[in-house]
Amino acid sequence: MIQSLKPISRSRVLDELDPVAGGGLIDRRYFLAGGAAIAGLLGSTSSSASTQDVSNALPPWMREPGYEPEGYGVPSPYERPVQRSIIQLYEDVAPSFRISGTPLEHLEGTITPNGLHFETHHSGVPEIDPGRHRLLIHGLVNRPLIFTVDDLLRYPTVSKTCFVECSGNSFFNTLPEPRQASCGTIHGLVSCSEWAGIPLALLLDEAGVDPDAAWLVASGADAAGYSRSIPLSKASDDTLLALYQNGERIRPEQGYPMRLLLPGWEASAAVKWVHAIKLTANPGYTRDETSRYSDLMADGSAHLFTFEMGTKSVITRPSPGLVLGGPGFYDISGLAWSGRGRIAKVEVSADGGQSWAEAVLQEPVLTQSLTRFRIPWRWEGGPIRLLSRAVDEHGHGQPSHEAWSRQRASNTRYHYNAIQAWQVQNDGRVENVYA
Amino acid sequence: MIQSLKPISRSRVLDELDPVAGGGLIDRRYFLAGGAAIAGLLGSTSSSASTQDVSNALPPWMREPGYEPEGYGVPSPYERPVQRSIIQLYEDVAPSFRISGTPLEHLEGTITPNGLHFETHHSGVPEIDPGRHRLLIHGLVNRPLIFTVDDLLRYPTVSKTCFVECSGNSFFNTLPEPRQASCGTIHGLVSCSEWAGIPLALLLDEAGVDPDAAWLVASGADAAGYSRSIPLSKASDDTLLALYQNGERIRPEQGYPMRLLLPGWEASAAVKWVHAIKLTANPGYTRDETSRYSDLMADGSAHLFTFEMGTKSVITRPSPGLVLGGPGFYDISGLAWSGRGRIAKVEVSADGGQSWAEAVLQEPVLTQSLTRFRIPWRWEGGPIRLLSRAVDEHGHGQPSHEAWSRQRASNTRYHYNAIQAWQVQNDGRVENVYA
Repeated sequence: MIQSLKPISRSRVLDELDPVAGGGLIDRRYFLAGGAAIAGLLGSTSSSASTQDVSNALPPWMREPGYEPEGYGVPSPYERPVQRSIIQLYEDVAPSFRISGTPLEHLEGTITPNGLHFETHHSGVPEIDPGRHRLLIHGLVNRPLIFTVDDLLRYPTVSKTCFVECSGNSFFNTLPEPRQASCGTIHGLVSCSEWAGIPLALLLDEAGVDPDAAWLVASGADAAGYSRSIPLSKASDDTLLALYQNGERIRPEQGYPMRLLLPGWEASAAVKWVHAIKLTANPGYTRDETSRYSDLMADGSAHLFTFEMGTKSVITRPSPGLVLGGPGFYDISGLAWSGRGRIAKVEVSADGGQSWAEAVLQEPVLTQSLTRFRIPWRWEGGPIRLLSRAVDEHGHGQPSHEAWSRQRASNTRYHYNAIQAWQVQNDGRVENVYA
Repeated sequence: MIQSLKPISRSRVLDELDPVAGGGLIDRRYFLAGGAAIAGLLGSTSSSASTQDVSNALPPWMREPGYEPEGYGVPSPYERPVQRSIIQLYEDVAPSFRISGTPLEHLEGTITPNGLHFETHHSGVPEIDPGRHRLLIHGLVNRPLIFTVDDLLRYPTVSKTCFVECSGNSFFNTLPEPRQASCGTIHGLVSCSEWAGIPLALLLDEAGVDPDAAWLVASGADAAGYSRSIPLSKASDDTLLALYQNGERIRPEQGYPMRLLLPGWEASAAVKWVHAIKLTANPGYTRDETSRYSDLMADGSAHLFTFEMGTKSVITRPSPGLVLGGPGFYDISGLAWSGRGRIAKVEVSADGGQSWAEAVLQEPVLTQSLTRFRIPWRWEGGPIRLLSRAVDEHGHGQPSHEAWSRQRASNTRYHYNAIQAWQVQNDGRVENVYA
């Protein structure tokens, strides 16, 4: 879906504003101001009009009653092109296997609607009958327990808004040459929801944790028997057994009827369709965490259990696939996040990194959640390079592509969080480049 | 959809906790505690188990690969019964006309998934082609303007999480006898989303507001030509021209391709499918705000333009339609909100209002948003009356049903925000009663 992004080309007073950095970045006070302060600030391409222009030809929906809605609503048919990016990872050996990224370039705000939440799996999405699903807690516990879904639905719940990001997100950018694809294809293995569920600590307390236990191995009820080891310290801290996603029961593709939620940690450890939790003294070194999801380094070592997701940011608009429709004012918009806490600052450059200006962060800025940033920009035409860099509340920022790559083995795909650069071409096309 | 709510009936240590109010309410510290503090606190009805119980009979989804997901996901087929409550307001004269409430009793957290957002209309839901939709700003302005949807999509956006509530929400409770219906049928004309759009002030500044303007009349592109007057002070303060709802473009039933969003004000004034905004010196006194949406008082007067929504709360679980499956521990959960600001406190009574205990509020508590409250409760069996009452940060609380009704004409239906009482019967059924 190629979409033209038109600028606001006719402005009454915007030309008088001072730039704050090279390449056309404009003072973010523009966004911070209330209604009164921005009076007369902005021009547009809108047309002057009389009421006659509008009333002359009434469209059918203004003449005939509309439809009566159903019990569960769907998007407008005109929005059908807004779909998840389908990514075929192993086109040659497993053509039916695909994962899907959130189309970040088409979304606003920070919440991901459930239908567009990114999705990965290791043996398809199981369609689980909740009446037959069981959760077993066993291993180093005083009494092993089996819970039905009905059992669990009666437990006290808490909720938390946070991102979930695949540790393989942005893996296209670990390839030698930058892939030309949409922002959602490259970076869309991250989504953000309000999750609700049971503190896992409560259920572990039910079973009674043996003092020798330091880890748990969680397994999913998918046909892959997907299994991961999680430190008990995280499991008994802020880990949830999630049952709800943005208000409703979680979707099959996110683990229905239940999944683990590990705020700020790689999504691959937050086992979906979870049906067994075994308390252990040591990690399980499961197939899924040794053959995959370990970080291969340039010095030949492999880092295991690198759960925490780094600080990251990406400009979602403009981004590849969205074509700038000519010089003028654009609203640069993007997302930033950190597994460690809140985003403290996002800076944007419109001159390839020579100068930077601070973007506005949309309040409320929540810990371990997607944070929307924005900055106004005047494109004068001609090639230009847009970048964003975020810093979290603990001072952790983003490496350059070169610095990230230098530390890693050439065939590693995980935990890529380097600064993303988008190259705007003369004709308004936007390309993925390594800066 | 009748659903049995089973209690947590076997507890190891919960019996030793002190009650904090009559009827079995238990100390909310239970919820506030982190993992360590609640160690050993809670028993359950879960079964002791060995791994054999689980592995003996693998269900099909653990043996065969699952499905490959589509570009836009849907809920599990097992969750199909969770639908909006369809309410036929005028069954005798207009049987096809219906509105639909959010099924509050089935949801958790505070965000309403887009498919379950409540919906009302005055002439059906128009299916608008965004390519043909126009927004006209005219009247007391320096230059009338027409915007296309594409024009508007290029403007700077902001986002805000807030509730939207129909001023007719809970109208069943204005009838002489309490209606026996689900919580979503009675109180479900309220939902909460992260909205994103353009500050209306920005567009008004574009047109240049005449100093004589004090109001605007907004009209929708539905066949009803639905129109409402809004004070300019609100329009140029926090009003948004909303284009996005929970990340994606707003749904047809919420005003696609655009609607007004008036945080904290009655939803009926936040015109959906908005296509014309006329700046005026005085209100329009439109059909829709005089024949409807004005408040008839007991003294014969009518209050017009009572936009702000009052403080309100409702226990969503347990609630009518959910049957308590026997004595034991239950998680009382509900929602509170105020059009004026943040919820400061919610208290719950389990003895018909004789004693009250403070519930836990789920953080973050956002202004003009739904706020989730919870308190643990031990039902000993026998009839008992559950109530909740909220207070906002400005000290505004909720009236009793009797006090609310005494001030209003008997045939008024708007701005009902009295304290809701649920009567738990001997057999665990829950009924709507006026307390």
